[in-house]
Amino acid sequence: MAGIEYKVWEEKQIERGIDVEKVKKSIKEFKVETPSWGYGDSGTRFKVFKQIGMPRNIFEKLDDAAQVHKYTGICPTVAIHIPWDKTDDYEKVKDYAANLNLKIGAVNPNLFQEDEYKFGSVCNSDPKVRKKAVEHMLECVEIARKVDSKILSLWIADGTNYPGQGDFRARKHYLEESLKELYDALDDDMRMLIEYKTFEPAFYHTDIADWGMSYTFATKLGEKAQVLVDIGHHFQGANVEHIVAFLLDEGKIGGFHFNNRKYADDDLIVGSINPYELFLIFNELVSAEIDPSTRNTAKNIAYMIDQSHCIEPKVPAMIQSVLNVQTAYAKALLVDRDELKKAQENNDVMRAESIVRCAFETDVRPLLEKVREEMGLNPDPMKAYLESGYEEKKLERGYGQGW
Amino acid sequence: MAGIEYKVWEEKQIERGIDVEKVKKSIKEFKVETPSWGYGDSGTRFKVFKQIGMPRNIFEKLDDAAQVHKYTGICPTVAIHIPWDKTDDYEKVKDYAANLNLKIGAVNPNLFQEDEYKFGSVCNSDPKVRKKAVEHMLECVEIARKVDSKILSLWIADGTNYPGQGDFRARKHYLEESLKELYDALDDDMRMLIEYKTFEPAFYHTDIADWGMSYTFATKLGEKAQVLVDIGHHFQGANVEHIVAFLLDEGKIGGFHFNNRKYADDDLIVGSINPYELFLIFNELVSAEIDPSTRNTAKNIAYMIDQSHCIEPKVPAMIQSVLNVQTAYAKALLVDRDELKKAQENNDVMRAESIVRCAFETDVRPLLEKVREEMGLNPDPMKAYLESGYEEKKLERGYGQGW
Amino acid sequence: MAGIEYKVWEEKQIERGIDVEKVKKSIKEFKVETPSWGYGDSGTRFKVFKQIGMPRNIFEKLDDAAQVHKYTGICPTVAIHIPWDKTDDYEKVKDYAANLNLKIGAVNPNLFQEDEYKFGSVCNSDPKVRKKAVEHMLECVEIARKVDSKILSLWIADGTNYPGQGDFRARKHYLEESLKELYDALDDDMRMLIEYKTFEPAFYHTDIADWGMSYTFATKLGEKAQVLVDIGHHFQGANVEHIVAFLLDEGKIGGFHFNNRKYADDDLIVGSINPYELFLIFNELVSAEIDPSTRNTAKNIAYMIDQSHCIEPKVPAMIQSVLNVQTAYAKALLVDRDELKKAQENNDVMRAESIVRCAFETDVRPLLEKVREEMGLNPDPMKAYLESGYEEKKLERGYGQGW
Amino acid sequence: MAGIEYKVWEEKQIERGIDVEKVKKSIKEFKVETPSWGYGDSGTRFKVFKQIGMPRNIFEKLDDAAQVHKYTGICPTVAIHIPWDKTDDYEKVKDYAANLNLKIGAVNPNLFQEDEYKFGSVCNSDPKVRKKAVEHMLECVEIARKVDSKILSLWIADGTNYPGQGDFRARKHYLEESLKELYDALDDDMRMLIEYKTFEPAFYHTDIADWGMSYTFATKLGEKAQVLVDIGHHFQGANVEHIVAFLLDEGKIGGFHFNNRKYADDDLIVGSINPYELFLIFNELVSAEIDPSTRNTAKNIAYMIDQSHCIEPKVPAMIQSVLNVQTAYAKALLVDRDELKKAQENNDVMRAESIVRCAFETDVRPLLEKVREEMGLNPDPMKAYLESGYEEKKLERGYGQGW
Repeated sequence: MAGIEYKVWEEKQIERGIDVEKVKKSIKEFKVETPSWGYGDSGTRFKVFKQIGMPRNIFEKLDDAAQVHKYTGICPTVAIHIPWDKTDDYEKVKDYAANLNLKIGAVNPNLFQEDEYKFGSVCNSDPKVRKKAVEHMLECVEIARKVDSKILSLWIADGTNYPGQGDFRARKHYLEESLKELYDALDDDMRMLIEYKTFEPAFYHTDIADWGMSYTFATKLGEKAQVLVDIGHHFQGANVEHIVAFLLDEGKIGGFHFNNRKYADDDLIVGSINPYELFLIFNELVSAEIDPSTRNTAKNIAYMIDQSHCIEPKVPAMIQSVLNVQTAYAKALLVDRDELKKAQENNDVMRAESIVRCAFETDVRPLLEKVREEMGLNPDPMKAYLESGYEEKKLERGYGQGW
Repeated sequence: MAGIEYKVWEEKQIERGIDVEKVKKSIKEFKVETPSWGYGDSGTRFKVFKQIGMPRNIFEKLDDAAQVHKYTGICPTVAIHIPWDKTDDYEKVKDYAANLNLKIGAVNPNLFQEDEYKFGSVCNSDPKVRKKAVEHMLECVEIARKVDSKILSLWIADGTNYPGQGDFRARKHYLEESLKELYDALDDDMRMLIEYKTFEPAFYHTDIADWGMSYTFATKLGEKAQVLVDIGHHFQGANVEHIVAFLLDEGKIGGFHFNNRKYADDDLIVGSINPYELFLIFNELVSAEIDPSTRNTAKNIAYMIDQSHCIEPKVPAMIQSVLNVQTAYAKALLVDRDELKKAQENNDVMRAESIVRCAFETDVRPLLEKVREEMGLNPDPMKAYLESGYEEKKLERGYGQGW
Repeated sequence: MAGIEYKVWEEKQIERGIDVEKVKKSIKEFKVETPSWGYGDSGTRFKVFKQIGMPRNIFEKLDDAAQVHKYTGICPTVAIHIPWDKTDDYEKVKDYAANLNLKIGAVNPNLFQEDEYKFGSVCNSDPKVRKKAVEHMLECVEIARKVDSKILSLWIADGTNYPGQGDFRARKHYLEESLKELYDALDDDMRMLIEYKTFEPAFYHTDIADWGMSYTFATKLGEKAQVLVDIGHHFQGANVEHIVAFLLDEGKIGGFHFNNRKYADDDLIVGSINPYELFLIFNELVSAEIDPSTRNTAKNIAYMIDQSHCIEPKVPAMIQSVLNVQTAYAKALLVDRDELKKAQENNDVMRAESIVRCAFETDVRPLLEKVREEMGLNPDPMKAYLESGYEEKKLERGYGQGW
Repeated sequence: MAGIEYKVWEEKQIERGIDVEKVKKSIKEFKVETPSWGYGDSGTRFKVFKQIGMPRNIFEKLDDAAQVHKYTGICPTVAIHIPWDKTDDYEKVKDYAANLNLKIGAVNPNLFQEDEYKFGSVCNSDPKVRKKAVEHMLECVEIARKVDSKILSLWIADGTNYPGQGDFRARKHYLEESLKELYDALDDDMRMLIEYKTFEPAFYHTDIADWGMSYTFATKLGEKAQVLVDIGHHFQGANVEHIVAFLLDEGKIGGFHFNNRKYADDDLIVGSINPYELFLIFNELVSAEIDPSTRNTAKNIAYMIDQSHCIEPKVPAMIQSVLNVQTAYAKALLVDRDELKKAQENNDVMRAESIVRCAFETDVRPLLEKVREEMGLNPDPMKAYLESGYEEKKLERGYGQGW
C-alpha cells in the first residue's frame, strides 16, 4: 500500500513538472543541528519540572543527540554551550562524538548567568565586567578551535528594565568594542553569528533588539560576521520570511535558531503553532539556494534548533522538531518556481498565492518515507525511536543537570 | 520655599474649582496592599540574581512590609502566598503583624509549583491532581479564617503548550467544579477574586485567559466571586481602563494587581513604563467612587501590588510602586468631572481630552508632600527610608528564601 | 489517475479508522454564507482601486454570489447590508435570489456611515442619534421579515479616539438600552448576533471591544442573542479557538465572520495567512458538533465570510475563501477523536499534538474532488469558474457601486 | 498669581542645578513642521466624515498653517504633498507662504494613489510603472528646488497582501535602483529621508518594513540619504527611543513624523495616548544634542507632524500636537544629565529611573507660558486661537478638498 501511495504521489509531482529525483537529493543533503541544552531540563520563571533520565553531562547529551541523528539521519552536529558543556578534555568530547557519528557544531558563550552580569555583560558600564565577558568569548574561540567548530553563536542577553537605567549609546559603544575584539580573534575560516531579540530577559530594552542592529554590527565588523535569526525573537506581526529574504540578498544571514511561539519567545517545538510561517521561510531559503546571486549565502546557513521543552520528553520533542523542519523544507522544494515567477511578473495575485499555498497543502509524508528508506532509515523515525527502548533506559540516569 | 510651593499649587486648584480638602481626605483614605513575595528574590527563566539581605521567612517579610507602611503610610496590609508563607502558628503571624501595625490581606494559593501540576492543577485531567488542588484552596480558606483575611486571590496558572494537548471544554468543566467547591466553602463575608492571564506559564492556551472568562465564572458562582485585574495580563493594545469601567458597571471587579510591562508580563515597578495608562485606570476608579451606582463596588476593590523585581533592591522598589500608585490616584482626583461630563455630552473631543490630560500634567508632588506632613510622615518617603539604615541592617540576614 | 489517487487516499483513512462516508456526508451538508458587499470594490483609507465589472446593485451582487454557489455548491445564502442593498421591493430581491438558487441570509444594519454617527450611533450621547440608530436596526428587522431572514448580524462600530472623549459607562448604558429595543422587536425564531472588535474604526476604545463584552450583553438579553466571532477582530496572540470552545460550551456562539489577517483587521482571503489557526478553530467546531451538550449550538452557527478584497478579483477571491473554509472543515473531520481523547486524558502531550497536526497535514484535495463529483460539481471549482467566461462578461457592467 | 507660579517654579529648578535660561533658549529655537494634508478631511477605510470649512487648495492650507505658527510660534515651515499640492506656479506658493511668515518644508511624493500603483510603485514588476514612479520622484526634486526645500520625504507604500504575491528580492532590487536614481538627482545640499512602516496599506509585507531596511538603503546610497522615523510605524512593544538613539549614533536619522496610536498606525494627536514614550524619545534627542559626536545629526533632524484627524477640528488638533511636542521637549531639557550619567555608571537602577521620571513629572506649563510671553505670544495658544474667530471664518469656505 505504501508503495502505491508513493507511486501515485510521485506521478502527480512529475505531472506538475517537478524533478522528484532532484527534490530527493536536496532533502538528503539537508542538515539540522541540535543543541546540547535541548536535551536537559528547562522551564519557566515559575517552575522547572524536573524529569527523570535527563543527561548529567555533555557525554550523555551527545548520547541523546546521537539518537536523534540515528533516527532522522539529518542531525550530525551538536551545538554546545559554555560553561554548561565545559570540560577539561575537549579531545575526549570530540572523540566521543565521533564514535556516535557526530561532530560539534556551533559554540555558544553564556553571557547571562554570572552574578556579575546582573546589569549586563559586554554592555555593562563596569569595564571589569566587560573584560570578563570578552575573555569568556575569547575562551569560546579557543574551545571552537579544539572541537573543530567554525561557528561562534552569539546571544547578547544584555538590556535594561527601566527608562533611564542605561545609556543606550554608551552601551552600544561598549558592545561594538567587545564584538571587535571577538571578531579579531576569529580564524579566517570562522564565523560569528550575531543573534537579536526584542525582549527578555531584559524587559525595557535589549541592546541587540532586532535584525537591523545585528546587521549593522555584522556589516561594520566584516565578512566573518553575520546575522543569526531566531524565529521566536520578533514582535507579533513581523514578517520573518521577508527579513530572511532581505538578509539573504545582503549576504548577511549566517544561521537560524528554529522554534515556535504563540506570543513571546516560547521556544516550543518548531512548526507546532504556525507551520505555514515555517514553510514560507523555507520558501525564501529554497528560492535563494537556486539563485546564483544568493546561493553561497544560502548554502552556508547553519540550521540550528533552539528550544526549551518545559513539559515534553526531550528526545521525542527534538525528533519532532527536526521532522517538522524537514517537512517544511520538502514542501518548499515542491513550489513550481517557473510558474510562480510568471505569476509574480504578471501581478496575478491569486495565481501566485495559489502556487505557494498548493505546495504547502501537499502531503509530503510519502516522499519523506521514501527518502528515509533510500537513506537506510526507518520511514517513521518517531515510532522507531519510541519502540527502541532508549527512553526507558535513560531513566537509569536519575535526575539530570538543569540550566 | 516648599510652603510657598504648596500654597501656589493649592490656590491654582481652588481657582479651577477643585475641593482640595476633599482631595486630601481621599488620598489619606487610600490604601495599597503589598505582597509578601515582593520582598524576596525573583528573576527570569534565565537567571535569578540573588541579593543579600532577603527575608528568610514570613516574619522578615513582614518586617520589610512594615518599612513600606512606615514611610508611605498607606500599606497596612500584606498579601500572603501559601505555601511560601505557610507556618504552624498563624496566631503568631497575626500578632507579629499587629505589632508592626500590619494586618494580613489576601491569601494566595499556589497552584503552579508542585510537580503534580505539570499538566495543570484544577484543570488537570487527572482527578487526583484536581483533588489535591481543591484541597489546597480549601486549606487557604482555613488559613484566611485564622489570619482574619476576607479575600482569596486566585491565580489559576493552568493551560497547555500545544494545539490538541488539552480538551478546552473538558478542562473548563473541571475548573468550574473546582471553583464551585471553593466558593461554597467561603464564609459569607469572604470573597474570591478570579485572576486571568493571556499567556505564561502556559504558552498555547491559558484556561482563564481574559477578563471575559473570569467574569463568566464569577457571575455563575455568585456575589462572593469577582474578577481580579492584573494590569500586565493583557495583550498589547488592550484598553485596560475600558475593561475596568465595564467590570465596575457590572459590579464584578474585586481587586487589582498593579505592576507594569513593556511587552509581556514583565512585573516591573507600577507606572514605570506607561504612567498615563495607570492614571487613566484611576480616572475610571475615581469616577466610579463618585457614582452611586458603582460606589460600593469601587470602594470594595482590593488594591494590591504584584511585582517581581529582578534587579532592583526590593523595599525601595516597593516604595516606588506605592508612590506611583498614589500619584496616579491623586491626579485622577484632580479631573474636573463636571466640565468633563459637559464636554463628553457635547461630543467636544478636544475639550474632553484636554480636561483629562491636564489633570495628568499637574505635578502633584507638592500636594502629596503636604498630605504626608498632615499624616505625620516624612514628605519624601524614599529618601527617609534610604537614610534610615534599614537597607544596611537587612544585609545581616545573608541570603534569603527565593520562590 | 485521479481515481487511483482517491482510492489510495480513502484506503489510508479507513485504515486509520476514519468513517469516510460520514466525513463525506458532513462535507456535503456544510454551508458558508457569502456577503453581498464582498463582490464590490473596497480598499484601504489610502486608496480604493476601482475594478471594472463590479456589481451596480443588489441584483448583480446576487448574480456574482450565484456563481460562487454554482461552482462550490455550498454557498446558498447571501448576507445583505442595509442601506447598501436597500431596495423598494424585497419580494423582487427574494424572487431574483430564488431563481439563482439563493436565499437571503443575515441582514446587517450599517451604523457607521451616516454623518450623524461621527461620535457614535447607539452609544452617542445625543439621544436623537441613538434614536436614529435604533430605528435603523428596527427597519432591518422589518427587512429580515420580508426576505425571510432569521439573523440580524450586528456590528457596532462605535468607540472613541482619545482618553476622556467618552464616558465608558454612560455609553455602555446607552448601548444596552438600544440592544434591548432591538431584542424585543425580534420574532421568536430570529436571532441577533453581536460582533466585537478590538479597534478600528475607533482607535482608543471600541464600545464592544472583545468577546467578553458581546457575551455579557447577549447573556443579559436572553436566548435570542448570541456572540458573532470575526476571526480578524482579536489582538495578536489571542487564542481564537479557545474563545470559540468557551462560547460553544456556554451555548453563546451564533455566527462566524471568516477572513484572515497578518497584523490588524486586514480582511484577507480566509486561511491565506494562517491556515493552521483556521483548522484549529474547526477542530473545536467539529468536536462540539459531536458532543450532545454542544451539538445544537454548533449546528446553529451561521458560517459567514466577511472580507474586503483590495486588489483581488472579487469572485475568484470569494471562491478561494470558500474552498479554504471547506478544506479546514474537511481536515478537522479527519482528527481521530477517540485517540485524541485518550492522549489528552493521559496527558500525553506529544501524542495529542501529533494526532491533531497529522489531520492537518493530510492532503484533502482528493477527498474534496470526490465529494464535488458526487455533488455533480466540477472537481476544480476555481478552474471551472475561470474558464466559464463569466469574468469577461462581467466587464460589460463598467464600474460598480463601491461602499 | 501666574507670576508667582513661574517664580516658584524657576527657583525650584535652579535649586536642582538646572540652567533655566539655557532651557528657555533651547525651547525658543525648537521648531516643528506641520503638514499641508493635516488641515484637510481624512478618515478611515469605513468613512471620511467631511467637515465644513476645510481648505480647498494649497493656499488655504497655508492660511491654516499660518494660524498654528501665529499662536505657537514654532511652526514656520509646512510640508507639501505632490500631487495634492501641485500647482502651476510655485513662485506664487512661495510668495504666499512668505507673506504668512511661512516657508515650504519637506516635499512628499505620492506613490500610492495612482491606479497604476495597485501592485506597487517603485517595486512593481512592471518597468513602465516603476518609470512613472521614478519620474514622479524626480518631478518632486524639481518642485523642491522651486520652493527652496532641501528635503524629500519618502514614504514607499509598496508591499503585498499575500504569501507568494511578490518576489521579495526582485522587488528589493527594483527599489534600490529607483532610490539610486532619486539620490543621484538630489543637489548636494538636499537630503532624502526614507520612511519605513510595518504594515498598511499592504497587509502581508511592506517593502520597507522597518528601520533596518531604511538604514540599509540609506547607508548604501550615501550621506544625502537618512532614515525618517514615524512613531506610529512600529510593532507593539517596540522601543522607539532605543531605535532613535541607535540611529543618532550612526548619524543616520534625518527626520521625524510625530503622531500617536493605541494599536496600529492611528495617526492621532501626538502624545495623546502615551506621553511618556514621547518624552523618552526627546530624552534621547536632547542627550544627542549635547554630545559632540551626535550633535550635528541631532540638530539637523526635521521634526514634522504627520497626523490624520478623523473627528477633530483640524487647526486645534494641530495646535495641540505642536504643544504636546513642545512639552515633551521642554521636560527632556529638565533631566539632570550629570546625575543621570553618574547613576547609570554606578548601575543605580532606582536612582537613574527616578531622575528621568522626575523630569517628566514636572509640570512645565509655567515655563512654557513664560517662554511664550518672552516670544511675544499669548501664553495659552489654544485659548487664543479659539477666541480669535478664525474657526468661524473658515466655515465660509464650505466643504474642502479631501485626499
